[in-house]
Amino acid sequence: MAGRFREPLDPAALRFSTSLPVDRALFREDIAGSIAHVDGLARAGVVSPSDARKIREGLRRIRREIERGKLPLQPSGTNDGRWAAEDIHMAVEARLARLIGPAAGRLHTARSRNDQVALDERLYIRGAAAALLAGIRALQRALVLTAEKERGTVMPGYTHLQRAQPVLLAHHLLAYVAMLDRDAGRIRDAAARANRSPLGAGALAGTPHPIDRRRTARALGFDGIEENSIDAVADRDALLELISAAAIGMMHLSRYCEELVLWSSQEWNFVRIGESYATGSSIMPQKRNPDIAELVRGKTGRVYGDLVALLTVMKGLPLAYNRDMQEDKEPLFDAVRTLGDSLAMAAGMTATLRFNRERFTGERGGDFLLATELADWLAERGVPFRAAHAAVGAAVRWCEERRMSLADMSVADLRTFSPAFDKEALALLSLHASVRRKRSAGSTAPAEVGKALRTWKRRLGA
Amino acid sequence: MAGRFREPLDPAALRFSTSLPVDRALFREDIAGSIAHVDGLARAGVVSPSDARKIREGLRRIRREIERGKLPLQPSGTNDGRWAAEDIHMAVEARLARLIGPAAGRLHTARSRNDQVALDERLYIRGAAAALLAGIRALQRALVLTAEKERGTVMPGYTHLQRAQPVLLAHHLLAYVAMLDRDAGRIRDAAARANRSPLGAGALAGTPHPIDRRRTARALGFDGIEENSIDAVADRDALLELISAAAIGMMHLSRYCEELVLWSSQEWNFVRIGESYATGSSIMPQKRNPDIAELVRGKTGRVYGDLVALLTVMKGLPLAYNRDMQEDKEPLFDAVRTLGDSLAMAAGMTATLRFNRERFTGERGGDFLLATELADWLAERGVPFRAAHAAVGAAVRWCEERRMSLADMSVADLRTFSPAFDKEALALLSLHASVRRKRSAGSTAPAEVGKALRTWKRRLGA
Amino acid sequence: MAGRFREPLDPAALRFSTSLPVDRALFREDIAGSIAHVDGLARAGVVSPSDARKIREGLRRIRREIERGKLPLQPSGTNDGRWAAEDIHMAVEARLARLIGPAAGRLHTARSRNDQVALDERLYIRGAAAALLAGIRALQRALVLTAEKERGTVMPGYTHLQRAQPVLLAHHLLAYVAMLDRDAGRIRDAAARANRSPLGAGALAGTPHPIDRRRTARALGFDGIEENSIDAVADRDALLELISAAAIGMMHLSRYCEELVLWSSQEWNFVRIGESYATGSSIMPQKRNPDIAELVRGKTGRVYGDLVALLTVMKGLPLAYNRDMQEDKEPLFDAVRTLGDSLAMAAGMTATLRFNRERFTGERGGDFLLATELADWLAERGVPFRAAHAAVGAAVRWCEERRMSLADMSVADLRTFSPAFDKEALALLSLHASVRRKRSAGSTAPAEVGKALRTWKRRLGA
Amino acid sequence: MAGRFREPLDPAALRFSTSLPVDRALFREDIAGSIAHVDGLARAGVVSPSDARKIREGLRRIRREIERGKLPLQPSGTNDGRWAAEDIHMAVEARLARLIGPAAGRLHTARSRNDQVALDERLYIRGAAAALLAGIRALQRALVLTAEKERGTVMPGYTHLQRAQPVLLAHHLLAYVAMLDRDAGRIRDAAARANRSPLGAGALAGTPHPIDRRRTARALGFDGIEENSIDAVADRDALLELISAAAIGMMHLSRYCEELVLWSSQEWNFVRIGESYATGSSIMPQKRNPDIAELVRGKTGRVYGDLVALLTVMKGLPLAYNRDMQEDKEPLFDAVRTLGDSLAMAAGMTATLRFNRERFTGERGGDFLLATELADWLAERGVPFRAAHAAVGAAVRWCEERRMSLADMSVADLRTFSPAFDKEALALLSLHASVRRKRSAGSTAPAEVGKALRTWKRRLGA
Repeated sequence: MAGRFREPLDPAALRFSTSLPVDRALFREDIAGSIAHVDGLARAGVVSPSDARKIREGLRRIRREIERGKLPLQPSGTNDGRWAAEDIHMAVEARLARLIGPAAGRLHTARSRNDQVALDERLYIRGAAAALLAGIRALQRALVLTAEKERGTVMPGYTHLQRAQPVLLAHHLLAYVAMLDRDAGRIRDAAARANRSPLGAGALAGTPHPIDRRRTARALGFDGIEENSIDAVADRDALLELISAAAIGMMHLSRYCEELVLWSSQEWNFVRIGESYATGSSIMPQKRNPDIAELVRGKTGRVYGDLVALLTVMKGLPLAYNRDMQEDKEPLFDAVRTLGDSLAMAAGMTATLRFNRERFTGERGGDFLLATELADWLAERGVPFRAAHAAVGAAVRWCEERRMSLADMSVADLRTFSPAFDKEALALLSLHASVRRKRSAGSTAPAEVGKALRTWKRRLGA
Repeated sequence: MAGRFREPLDPAALRFSTSLPVDRALFREDIAGSIAHVDGLARAGVVSPSDARKIREGLRRIRREIERGKLPLQPSGTNDGRWAAEDIHMAVEARLARLIGPAAGRLHTARSRNDQVALDERLYIRGAAAALLAGIRALQRALVLTAEKERGTVMPGYTHLQRAQPVLLAHHLLAYVAMLDRDAGRIRDAAARANRSPLGAGALAGTPHPIDRRRTARALGFDGIEENSIDAVADRDALLELISAAAIGMMHLSRYCEELVLWSSQEWNFVRIGESYATGSSIMPQKRNPDIAELVRGKTGRVYGDLVALLTVMKGLPLAYNRDMQEDKEPLFDAVRTLGDSLAMAAGMTATLRFNRERFTGERGGDFLLATELADWLAERGVPFRAAHAAVGAAVRWCEERRMSLADMSVADLRTFSPAFDKEALALLSLHASVRRKRSAGSTAPAEVGKALRTWKRRLGA
Repeated sequence: MAGRFREPLDPAALRFSTSLPVDRALFREDIAGSIAHVDGLARAGVVSPSDARKIREGLRRIRREIERGKLPLQPSGTNDGRWAAEDIHMAVEARLARLIGPAAGRLHTARSRNDQVALDERLYIRGAAAALLAGIRALQRALVLTAEKERGTVMPGYTHLQRAQPVLLAHHLLAYVAMLDRDAGRIRDAAARANRSPLGAGALAGTPHPIDRRRTARALGFDGIEENSIDAVADRDALLELISAAAIGMMHLSRYCEELVLWSSQEWNFVRIGESYATGSSIMPQKRNPDIAELVRGKTGRVYGDLVALLTVMKGLPLAYNRDMQEDKEPLFDAVRTLGDSLAMAAGMTATLRFNRERFTGERGGDFLLATELADWLAERGVPFRAAHAAVGAAVRWCEERRMSLADMSVADLRTFSPAFDKEALALLSLHASVRRKRSAGSTAPAEVGKALRTWKRRLGA
Repeated sequence: MAGRFREPLDPAALRFSTSLPVDRALFREDIAGSIAHVDGLARAGVVSPSDARKIREGLRRIRREIERGKLPLQPSGTNDGRWAAEDIHMAVEARLARLIGPAAGRLHTARSRNDQVALDERLYIRGAAAALLAGIRALQRALVLTAEKERGTVMPGYTHLQRAQPVLLAHHLLAYVAMLDRDAGRIRDAAARANRSPLGAGALAGTPHPIDRRRTARALGFDGIEENSIDAVADRDALLELISAAAIGMMHLSRYCEELVLWSSQEWNFVRIGESYATGSSIMPQKRNPDIAELVRGKTGRVYGDLVALLTVMKGLPLAYNRDMQEDKEPLFDAVRTLGDSLAMAAGMTATLRFNRERFTGERGGDFLLATELADWLAERGVPFRAAHAAVGAAVRWCEERRMSLADMSVADLRTFSPAFDKEALALLSLHASVRRKRSAGSTAPAEVGKALRTWKRRLGA
């Protein structure tokens, strides 16, 4: 007897519609979910203990076969929803039927591919989040260790890519540690919100079989169940939330890598990325390109694209499951892999960085960086800040026209711009003095940076 | 004395670069931040009590002037960073200078526009999140009340927009309540993560003035400070996180509105949107268009666009502040306003819905919806599910070829497809019986839906 | 002697940075380009005729090896730019060196990977555009043939998914033919603009070798050269333009597939997609899901994502080549493959469609569709259109309240709404009469649709 | 008599749904279209000559009123499609009714808002394209004039932001001229494809009135009509194509502005942007920020967002018009305005650039830039390029270890890396010599750059 369909699926349509090349990555999640499900069916008396045992053993064997590359996962199938290997779920079940016979057919009682795939994705997200969190910690640790090594290094802080005020390199690197910490927070929140089991929602309406959704959920390590059965199979916001967090994370990495590219230019000449993370040119023998940093920056685009792709897929879909949603896995996997790899690359590169510590300290003209010091000093002496700002601005222009630096000015020169200036003001004109003068919490003052380093080392176990 | 610049900004460049038409929306946040800042300066002895009082009073007066439309906020300005009304911060300060004279110049001590704008945005996010959460609750409430009214209404649940299994309309509507609840969770998480004050970070390095960042932060209702001063002014992930949550929220609304559009088509004829949310046609006198639902669905695009816009802006920017980041406010405001308005529209529309309760119950052929019932029933009697599925599939095809419905079959007919069928099977063939047979937690069973309704009503105070 | 580098690339960094798994798809383009290049070098006397012959033969052999799967293309390599198989260009050259020895080293004279990869992409675009144009024609032909078969079928035209006015199904299908025609125009324009050779631009500055760029360009079938050598290697707008056109094309297909999904719902019941393009359910035996249509609609998301990905990659990159640009190929290939496959699926599905021709003609209430007819008729008799519209709108409401259709009204009834009505008005109330009354060019009048069908059949050779 | 509706639109829903604040920008297009339409109605005898004259005069008066700010365009309205000022079309018609009485009601004969708005958008696109093309030419001219002024300036060409080979600054600037030229091509193609009139398509089906669509199209300056009436009102690819072209154009500008930001950093110190396009800091008196360049770069994000917004809106919409499509105008207007303004800013800035011409020529170590020269020279003498590359790479490393530059090497030193070196090789080591040695078409050789300058000046009339 043939079921509902008479004509087979067009072969090109099978190739177009199979998700096996993508969702085969979920085989572990799929089998773990099936084992928990059959346990639940056995507890409910829906499947006999012996059938349950056969199914469990068959599934474990299939997992080993796939791990060892013994089970060819080739798309094949009909449009009938029976035994066709169009996706990982059907491929596993078809193999199970060959291994243990008709009992295999009992596994799919009280569930549908709709809740099955949703379950696999939730399990995947849990693992992916844990891996990403570890990756973030590794990069944070690499940054903190580098910051520690470079505690004494002063550099220009930039706004508008113009030199603004001196900062400690360590302070600058810790800014990324802070960004990454929020990234971790977002990923943790996403994983926590996702940690509810959709299993037992069936196709969309639930099931008449007396299964215990909550118990099976606990067995799989979930915090509870996704309550509404329609919502459980229809929604994909768990994926979107993780990809959103990944997109923001990649944005942070793109900024760090942009800076590595800038700093390793001949013009900046501030850092040297280790050769194990740089490459040469097929034509220019002198080149030493920061390829890995560029690639991380570039791969930001693909995660943004992943996010747009899935947001577009989900827009305007009526409930519950629609086949469009099969397009959810590639963006998810790609975003997770890209962020994970990029974190690893950034951590690896960071460990190889060699900074040119004296790069900025001796530089003529660097003292324009210190103009704010002068203005702040005037303000402390009672000059309204706006007036102080104008006075120092005029002094800068005066110096530029004479190709002088601020440090070349005499007290008399300074006084032509504000009578409040005196000798003490000249003592301000040093990069190190500038950072030392800062007092506010979280500032670039060495004491504040030291406190931050200690806090991060404790938190990261570094 | 002229400061740093000699040539004024090109007038077209001023128009191009001013943010005043956009960031004027932040005037309340800006003034609240400035008042807290001057309080802090006074406590630190940086500004005298009497200057602080003058500044405070001036700022409050300016707030009233803007609220009453008395202060024209026209872009004007030089490139000198002094007294130019190129943005709301400068416009307020320029007005302050006219009101209270040189003391106004002391307000900007120990801060920069960089931490000032970051502060304003954090305050805005806090208020916006609260408003969005209220909007979500209002829509949840409207959905729950409608679900309660329609407790007895049965409809086809759909997958692939094909009729799948009968569900209660109330269950379907509660799926959206669950989605919205996760949206609320994301917004709360975003707001909590954003609730740290950047004030005192200065331009990027902190300040030598002895201000107490933590105390001022508390005074402004923050949970703490954004610790690293560079990160505090350089990052915008607080905005991106809120816009991401808004994008996912709009995705959910787009699905609901798609369904309202489908259901109010002549083909579905399942719901009537109240006239106060529908419009006619300039040419077709019979039209009654679900315009508001369509617009909510369409406006999803603009929030996706907002997200892409800001992700693009931030990609690859070196630290700390860059002027590109001025482009952060429009996407933020637009996403918040669009989601807020769309929630209100959805809630308003929901309250006017009139469902055609008998629409599906009497329909010939509707019983194909019940095919899964038969398969599940066979499975309960020991037929492996896959075999049960094939048997019922064949029965459906047999009926279709004869233009019969399943309910037209005799027991004998049924038995030609599986000997396990008996009279009891025929009793399954009712939409209401189908939903009643469900037993799993979170299913569409009336008892489960009733439980969910009670839970939601309690949680929402509805 | 080792060249510039001492440390090898980190193995994880190699995996992260290799493009071979992606750009191996370019092997034919790469070898064709290399053959044309060595011909040019030989003509210029840079390479001896015998070396050129050896290189040419070696390259052809490599092409055969790859085609037959004989050459394993595994990433390997150093960071030295020498003989490393990190991408298809180096993999081919490394193999050439093993086949013909040191002469292989002369092939890369007067070119760089920068112009080489740009060349390969231009050749790929040319081929991809031709394939997409053929795919568009095939779908247009399928639509035109279906339209021809359904010349007599009338359906409601919709606006806001509300029934608006009757149209011929053929007219509706031809709307898609027109959209696809503009898609073809965009692809042709993109291919024409891209058809200029970057070869000879070198790394970015050109070359001192006396090659003839224009002659080699002609030999490769280009219309000319990309003139500026920096632009030739730095820009990727040729890719972006093609992906943009693909995104718009997918948008069109998503609308067509949305309609197929709607029309094959039980509510519409207007079309049946052939079984070879539909699939069943793992749990619901009666299902017949329009999966392929849903997938095409869903895959729109991935092409939008491809576009965003590459736009993001290119944003803000300084000239000339940056490694970020390696991320250009996956979005390009993915967009081309997705659009190509989707066109093929849409064409295949279209050929299997079976329309329920009488679906709408007999339907009670369908005549509200004809309200505009009445209003237009009144306008022809001198009633200002706005007044006619109001009169007919009131008549519709009157009927609805009485559960009548317009055709149930007597002339006396009609006259209560406008004294201009007479018996002739009642004759308008037929779907077929309505389409026949249209007169404007391009309207749904059968004569106009017939003209359009003839034009398209001639243009498409159908 | 009341028409179809009894309840008015909810006031918040009116605010939510009105497009008047956005589409009022189309008033000129709307009135021009209406005048052409009433001319056509008069020619067809549908409207009497005297009514037509009254309508025409009324419309012209309304145009003047709006131009002079005399007609308040406030959203108001009912859901009835009658006389409501919810959009510019209804606002104009409502005003016309007040001015000329019932004859105004005849204007809307044989058209619908659907074809009316599509027409207005096509007219807008035509004007916008012309303005953008003029903006592109202006920027091209500014770049060409600057290139001409800087014909003798040599700079490092970069790949991976590492110094690669010397190029002429003029050559580098002309790369942007070439990119902009393709942008212009895309805009021209988009405008040509869009230049077909949708007017007369009616709501979607055409009209029974005997209007001559082609003649009215010609009168409005179109190349023909959009043939299929459903397509004419349902599609928005004309908008998407223009926005796509704008997105690519912004990408180009973002690269140019990125370079201006880099070049005006203290590290590069290569260019000074005029003060009229730079701004200071509210806190740092020495700052001179390239704000306008940063803003152009940042505004790239909003055009990408516009593209994503409209692509999202249109995805999966069934034919014909849906209210979602009202969301098409803001992205279109925003993209056109942003690109137009950015082009103007870039042109203005370019005219103020002052280059530091000697910046790179005297720099020690700059000669590593010339390594490719040595490799090419060896290749010309018969050394296979790959071997030449390795030899020079080793020489660079040798120099770096000794803190020498290539020019410091003796012939004997060189020969330890390749015996083929002789005295002539040393003569290569000059930036100017390097560019002069290039021979290929489109290279940075002064002769080639001179040719390109002449070509562009002729083409641009500069």
